[in-house]
Parts: sequence; C-alpha cells; structure tokens
Amino acid sequence: MQAGKPILYSYFRSSCSWRVRIALALKGINYETVPINLIKDGGQQFSEEFQTLNPMKQVPALKIDGITIGQSLAIIEYLEETRPTPRLLPQDPKKRASVRMISDLIAGGIQPLQNLSVLKQVGTENQLSWAQNVICSGFDALEQILHGTAGKFCVGDEVSMADLCLVPQVANADRFKVDLNPYPTIRRINKTLLALEAFQVSHPCRQPDTPAELRA
Amino acid sequence: MQAGKPILYSYFRSSCSWRVRIALALKGINYETVPINLIKDGGQQFSEEFQTLNPMKQVPALKIDGITIGQSLAIIEYLEETRPTPRLLPQDPKKRASVRMISDLIAGGIQPLQNLSVLKQVGTENQLSWAQNVICSGFDALEQILHGTAGKFCVGDEVSMADLCLVPQVANADRFKVDLNPYPTIRRINKTLLALEAFQVSHPCRQPDTPAELRA
Repeated sequence: MQAGKPILYSYFRSSCSWRVRIALALKGINYETVPINLIKDGGQQFSEEFQTLNPMKQVPALKIDGITIGQSLAIIEYLEETRPTPRLLPQDPKKRASVRMISDLIAGGIQPLQNLSVLKQVGTENQLSWAQNVICSGFDALEQILHGTAGKFCVGDEVSMADLCLVPQVANADRFKVDLNPYPTIRRINKTLLALEAFQVSHPCRQPDTPAELRA
Repeated sequence: MQAGKPILYSYFRSSCSWRVRIALALKGINYETVPINLIKDGGQQFSEEFQTLNPMKQVPALKIDGITIGQSLAIIEYLEETRPTPRLLPQDPKKRASVRMISDLIAGGIQPLQNLSVLKQVGTENQLSWAQNVICSGFDALEQILHGTAGKFCVGDEVSMADLCLVPQVANADRFKVDLNPYPTIRRINKTLLALEAFQVSHPCRQPDTPAELRA
C-alpha cells in the first residue's frame, strides 16, 4: 500500500458507498478499497475492529489525510473542500442549496428508511412493500423538484453531489422492483449519468468485492 | 409583513424545524413563522398549497432571497454561505468534516427513523421501543465520536451545526423516555447548549404555534 493513499471502507452493493466511489472517480483520487461485507459473519461492520474505526458501524468510511470520516455526504463535502476540481457543488449559493436539498432528500429521506437494518426490523413479508412505499414517496417529491432544477443533470448541466446520490438510489429502486414510469425526469438523468465513466467504474458490478455471479 | 423577510414554515415540535430556528436565532436573522400543523386536518403538510411550496411535504421549509429551501441541513448550509457570521462551521476542513459527520448521523441516521410518518407505519404498540432502539443505537455511536471531537460543544469550543442537531434530538429522546445515563458527554453538551439564548428562544415551548398547555 502506498503511504498516504486514502482507504475506502466499502461494500459493493451499498448505495452510500457508491456515492463516495463516484466522487473519488470524478476527482481522480487514487484509493484502496477495504471491503466490509454487511452480510457475511453476521455483518463485518459489527466487528470490534471496524467499530473502533467507525462507531456508526456503517459503510462507507474514508481514511484520508490522517482522519477517518463516516457519512457519505460529509465525506463528499470534505473531498470538495480539499480537492475542489472538478467541482461537485455549483458556485452559486442558491444552486448549491438545490444540490444539498436533493442530496439530503435522498440521503436522509429515502435511503435510511430502506436500508438493510430497517428492513430487518420490518420483517421479511413486509420488506418489499415498505421499501417501495418509501422510495415512491421520495421520488414523487424528487421528480417535482427536478422539474424546477434540472438541466442535463439534477441541477443544471454540471454533475453535482445530487447526481452522486441519484444514481445509487435508482439502482436501489430497481432492486426493489419500483415502477419508474411515473418518474421520466429521474429516469432520463439517471440514464445520462450511467453513461459517464466515473459512474461505471464505481458501479456495484465492478468492485473488488463484487461476487463473480454479479460481475459485469 | 416586511418585504423580503424570510418565512419559516415550521411546527413547534418538529426537531428539524428547531435546528433551523436555532440557526436563525444565532445569526440574528429576523423571520416570520408560518405554522404547519403536522397533526391537525390530517396533517397540514399534505395540503395542496404546501406541497406546491415543498414537494417533500415536510417542515421546515424556508422562503428566503427569492427561493424556497427544504431539508434543514441544506437550509443551514445556505444560511452559512450567505450570512457567515457567526460561523456554524469551523474554518478547518477536518473539523468541518466532524461537524457534518455528526450532523448527518443525527439528521440522516437517527431522526428519519423515529419521525412521525415512520412511527405511524410501525404501529402504536411498537412505536416506543422502535424509537428507543433507533435513538440508543445512534447515541451509542455519537457518544463515542464525541469523545474524540468534543470540547465545550460537539466539535471543539464553538457552537456548530452539529450542536443545532444535537439539542432537538435529545429532546426527542426525552419524549421517547430514553435513559440518557449511558451518554454523559451528550448530556453535558446538551445542558450547556440549553443555557444559550438562541437555543431558548427557538425552543418548542416558546413558538407561535405552541399550544397553551405546553408553553413555558
């Protein structure tokens, strides 16, 4: 391992990890992946070693510049402040507000309500409908917001932190068999983003810990 | 109404609204409150009028500088960028990362899992234990993180966005009868913050829409 190379604690399928992987790819930051399998061994995030590193027992966590940061948006904001090129937040404060509003809507209002630990508590038979309700309710709002903010991407014509949240959330929606037809703007932007290299190299199907049968 | 005065759509008991009220108070920003009662009329946040304003159907929302922003942390970041004094994010990027990590832990990892709409779905008999589990799990992590970051407040000795998230979440913990004894650092910081004027004037017991029997 090269000294000083950032280490990303990640799980291939974690949508929050994917957000950070896109940011690292866009900014051209070399890093090492340490896979944390959220299923195996009852969840490797619960190991004593990992808890010391990230008391939240969640991925992603990024070791960088001598600190360890948890929470995907906090990581992305740190990368933005210390490695500003290319920018993931627009210069105009009002547009930055739109980017953060969309990011928080997904990262705080959708994803946490359909993640693994909540679904476990909801019980096997209710999981699918629970996740679908949560995602549809969030996407209803998001589609409407995007009508006011979107250009080529979520906010205008530059890729921003909001787009880093959108694509992994749409992938989750696919996994939970959500009908995306009511969300033409979300679908269009998602498709455009998935064509970009940074979104491809960071994709769950191409990670060091992606199981062979899910590789593409 | 004074032209240009910001309008905060708020509910006295909403912990996310309280975060923003503290920010507005600390920064000395005059604003008008429009109460949105989350219980009355089946929830005033579901009215067509409010949905047009905030498709997320949630409080808070802030109308300011000709735009409307939803999501409390996006609002606070916007206020910080446009009204930087006093600062709610430290200057050092590493400390800013700590502030955002703690804020996101509460705003994304605790609050959304114990808010009204989720508790409704969980069912009356499970609500209390669900909320307690969510809060304790988050506070376990938070207490440990604070051992590394806290001074007088959550991160060092200056009030930050993290503190704006902490106090309302502790109030929620109280409402759900969470035993706070395992969290001495959280308790100490919360107590110190509650002595500050900005945290008092923004308190749920002192809002225009606070019912008479809950006023203090």
